[in-house]
Amino acid sequence: MMGCDMRQATSLLSINTTRPGLLEITDQISAWAHAQNFRAGLLTIFCRHTSVSLLIQENAAREVRDDLETFFARIAPEDPVAYSHDDEGADDMPAHLRAALTQVQLTIPLIEGQLVLGTWQGIYLFEHRRRPHARTLALHLIGE
Amino acid sequence: MMGCDMRQATSLLSINTTRPGLLEITDQISAWAHAQNFRAGLLTIFCRHTSVSLLIQENAAREVRDDLETFFARIAPEDPVAYSHDDEGADDMPAHLRAALTQVQLTIPLIEGQLVLGTWQGIYLFEHRRRPHARTLALHLIGE
Amino acid sequence: MMGCDMRQATSLLSINTTRPGLLEITDQISAWAHAQNFRAGLLTIFCRHTSVSLLIQENAAREVRDDLETFFARIAPEDPVAYSHDDEGADDMPAHLRAALTQVQLTIPLIEGQLVLGTWQGIYLFEHRRRPHARTLALHLIGE
Repeated sequence: MMGCDMRQATSLLSINTTRPGLLEITDQISAWAHAQNFRAGLLTIFCRHTSVSLLIQENAAREVRDDLETFFARIAPEDPVAYSHDDEGADDMPAHLRAALTQVQLTIPLIEGQLVLGTWQGIYLFEHRRRPHARTLALHLIGE
Repeated sequence: MMGCDMRQATSLLSINTTRPGLLEITDQISAWAHAQNFRAGLLTIFCRHTSVSLLIQENAAREVRDDLETFFARIAPEDPVAYSHDDEGADDMPAHLRAALTQVQLTIPLIEGQLVLGTWQGIYLFEHRRRPHARTLALHLIGE
Repeated sequence: MMGCDMRQATSLLSINTTRPGLLEITDQISAWAHAQNFRAGLLTIFCRHTSVSLLIQENAAREVRDDLETFFARIAPEDPVAYSHDDEGADDMPAHLRAALTQVQLTIPLIEGQLVLGTWQGIYLFEHRRRPHARTLALHLIGE
């Protein structure tokens, strides 16, 4: 009986990025999820690109994001000789590597009508390319 | 008709960590999942923190965990000068970096009443802070 | 009422790997998902091993995969002295590290009967061991 109220909601969310780095999207994601009026459910955010990624990280101190960006630039650096794939620009292959090290998808439970994000957790789109890009996330919510 | 048995179960699981490193939580997670009596379903474990993370890894040889801990300490090291975010202690920013490189969330199918973990797979909470912490995981199971 | 059509499908997919590196499995995964005839849903792919992993990456330029493989070999290298776990071969511990840095599980929404993969996204099994291996993925689809 309970299950007879089970349903799904889906959407595509467009986000324009203007520079590389972490762009907080918690508000857009939460607003969409809460507008679907689920009491309990499972939210999935899927990034339809390979040179931008998703990350949940601390949304308090700005320095945390600076350090995260610096770290990923250091372990997956731009390098004029390291990569065989360089025809889309010097920032393209590092973008794929940084995306591989982070997330293409995040799944977050919703309990008592709220996403279970912790107090200091924000959802970020992690843009790895230098030029502005129009990005699309697929959102999926299942529950009741 | 089939879908009319579909339902959800949710819970918050508290885990106290006493030291940095990999803490196996397979038994607690499995026990909770199996107690919900689902024949088939999808289990999601969500970590509500940004300085501890989740990892599925080999649970046979202890040396694998030692090497994993050493590896993450090497690629995302404590460093008195590297980070601009240092007011929460020298182990805080490396904790965020190690969490970014691993998982904030794991989703595991349940088939024929069992989580589909492989023979050698264990679920670990990867504590990145030195001091003891009270950690909370959100658990969500959907299925029938 | 809507929810009364909600259902699940599950399967185990066997894949034989013959060499280390990225093996595209998009076609096998899509074929299975589409054969289940869901209008909307959530597909989860779970890798039941700790020395092979999952990755979504660009499936256009072959050089991207070469560079990805080279990158992971560089940051988690084979090393005759670095690891305490070496009794399963020199490629075993790097395999665990590379698996820890990538994904054990991917969850992809299905909207209007199609997986929401972006134009350039392919699903890859990332084999980290040198010898041929028989690998198993668990597939789970929930929706209607």
